[in-house]
Amino acid sequence: MRMKKSHLLAPGPTPVPPEVLAAMGQPILHHRAPEFGAVMEDVRAGLRYLFQTEEEVVTFAASGTGAMEAAVVNVLSPEDKAICIRGGKFGERWQEICEAYGAEVIPIDVEWGSAVNPTLVADTLQAHPEVKALYVPASETSTGVRHDVEALAQIVRPTDAILVVDAVTAIGVFDMPTDAWGLDIVVSGSQKALMLPPGLGFCCVATKKAWKLVEQSTLPSYYFDFKKEYENLRNNLSSYTPAVSLVVGLREVLRLIRAEGLEQVFARHDRLARATRSAMQAIGLELFAKESPSNALTAVKVPEGIDGTAIPKMLREDYGITIAGGQSQFKGKIFRIAHLGYAFDWDIVTAVAATEMVLKRLGYDVELGAGVRAAQHTLLEG
Amino acid sequence: MRMKKSHLLAPGPTPVPPEVLAAMGQPILHHRAPEFGAVMEDVRAGLRYLFQTEEEVVTFAASGTGAMEAAVVNVLSPEDKAICIRGGKFGERWQEICEAYGAEVIPIDVEWGSAVNPTLVADTLQAHPEVKALYVPASETSTGVRHDVEALAQIVRPTDAILVVDAVTAIGVFDMPTDAWGLDIVVSGSQKALMLPPGLGFCCVATKKAWKLVEQSTLPSYYFDFKKEYENLRNNLSSYTPAVSLVVGLREVLRLIRAEGLEQVFARHDRLARATRSAMQAIGLELFAKESPSNALTAVKVPEGIDGTAIPKMLREDYGITIAGGQSQFKGKIFRIAHLGYAFDWDIVTAVAATEMVLKRLGYDVELGAGVRAAQHTLLEG
Repeated sequence: MRMKKSHLLAPGPTPVPPEVLAAMGQPILHHRAPEFGAVMEDVRAGLRYLFQTEEEVVTFAASGTGAMEAAVVNVLSPEDKAICIRGGKFGERWQEICEAYGAEVIPIDVEWGSAVNPTLVADTLQAHPEVKALYVPASETSTGVRHDVEALAQIVRPTDAILVVDAVTAIGVFDMPTDAWGLDIVVSGSQKALMLPPGLGFCCVATKKAWKLVEQSTLPSYYFDFKKEYENLRNNLSSYTPAVSLVVGLREVLRLIRAEGLEQVFARHDRLARATRSAMQAIGLELFAKESPSNALTAVKVPEGIDGTAIPKMLREDYGITIAGGQSQFKGKIFRIAHLGYAFDWDIVTAVAATEMVLKRLGYDVELGAGVRAAQHTLLEG
Repeated sequence: MRMKKSHLLAPGPTPVPPEVLAAMGQPILHHRAPEFGAVMEDVRAGLRYLFQTEEEVVTFAASGTGAMEAAVVNVLSPEDKAICIRGGKFGERWQEICEAYGAEVIPIDVEWGSAVNPTLVADTLQAHPEVKALYVPASETSTGVRHDVEALAQIVRPTDAILVVDAVTAIGVFDMPTDAWGLDIVVSGSQKALMLPPGLGFCCVATKKAWKLVEQSTLPSYYFDFKKEYENLRNNLSSYTPAVSLVVGLREVLRLIRAEGLEQVFARHDRLARATRSAMQAIGLELFAKESPSNALTAVKVPEGIDGTAIPKMLREDYGITIAGGQSQFKGKIFRIAHLGYAFDWDIVTAVAATEMVLKRLGYDVELGAGVRAAQHTLLEG
């Protein structure tokens, strides 16, 4: 068998830096020991920096979906109305969670590949002043589109509703300052830009308006209980046994992010995203995002006559490179190259070169190196 | 500062074997890649072996409490009645979860340090034939007591109710065969006898009677959904991004357990537990468990006139040894030495020797080495 080195360029999980793996390989700390309290103290400060907030961010032992559920069950009451911005698998997930708990969802449908029109949101909110919360993915991972969270926050702020943002592939990718934009609740997960294995979910309840809803909420919750978790967090504790090794890794990751600096982190993701987009366009492919592409990943349309499912399959099997295919109705119709987290210029060069080779083998007319050259130009410009 | 080697003898988290840490330090797998499917396949077989069942065991990215919640929200409907066997913090937790979701709890109170009287359970069930489920911790970690799950299963089997067992500090510690005893649902977590970091919760829905309740249940759930999770598991998938590094570690742990063999695993825990109990008694201390001590941990009464909170504190600060104090009303009144998971004879010798030294420093009249000698005798007998 040909030996292959693994390259993970999927939109989560993403690669974990070796220094973080090493930190997580240290002997397990007890979650009530003072040493772990010191870890939690560092983590709290690091998460405030990452989320750009003066408020606290709670961490659950759960994947991002668990954190999303927390932002529903702690906020709504049965039969409350919520607006969910669809237009991708993760926008739809908000609706599924709300409905599982008996909330009434007013969906705003967005064509997959497009960003929501803020005016439409403003009109919908005006037509339904009884809406308690608006749920939106900042970066819709299934389509590679970024919604305009800043505009949505301005629309929601003067109303009685709150804005709940799924920032799973947004936090640590592009600038989305929680406090400066007045985001009410921001949710994220560990396995994307946070460069950790999956298993941690984050929630930041950032405004008084959000806390007021939390106080009023009557949906049932036990494991995902904001009030209990925030109370414990203030003593550097968690309500139930935390995923200690992941939290120790989180401290290390937050150190790395702070050392690089958020501005540089965002600039790096922007550079990698632009390089990937220019490379795909240089080899004649069309980006799936019609507008406002997310810097977390680039979704690309599979060219006519090419077997779309073969692209990630060959990349993985023949070259050890993991990217993602399309989801739901776009299975086989798009492929997605992620460039978030522990991703650097040479990961893009590698992914582009390998994609060119796979496309050529699949019969697509491509000049080898054309995409790489375009990426290099963008990377050189910085 | 004096250098200290860390010794973790708390009832969770427990130490992680180096080969498992190494496995978890490998590059992150993508959860939809065939390589991870192969991990899941191995894990499914290993968990069936560990739980002694022909049925499947689902894994959630959550701590044990999340798995407990799953065994409530997937089983009950609002206003359903459930019996919870209290007598410790974890028995009480079942009640808290049931009540958080609007189920009506009929508590059976057991004095902390005692095991439930099965006859009392039979009488309570007979008096309340409408009860849907009986919730019990197999090993009550807060008191070190083991409840007689086999007897409870015999009582529950002919009724319409199901038996739900919290096996968080039972699975992999002592023999509790799911299928042979007809346990309906068994719940566990990763950070105890499974020798993993915290962050995985397990549920085994093992009987048709349990599945019938799952089909009827109308409590809301999304993240913890048995039907969805079991359906995905059959394809080696999970509904949401699994905690891949912990699952990779789990495969390694299940290999270790299978290599040792369940019978040997149980015998080892029994030997360590007997050695610890004999050591504590040899230095004149009283065991907290009046009857039926769990082989997961030994809870010991703090002798009169000794500051109970100082014992774990000095062990940790002066000797690097982490044990647990008492919880709730027994804070400062008991201490708990765990001997589950990656624990061996020399861990007991270490814990006993250090406890003797700490007690002597605290003014307790102890012949140094008396407990160690008693432990050695037990360990030699095997």
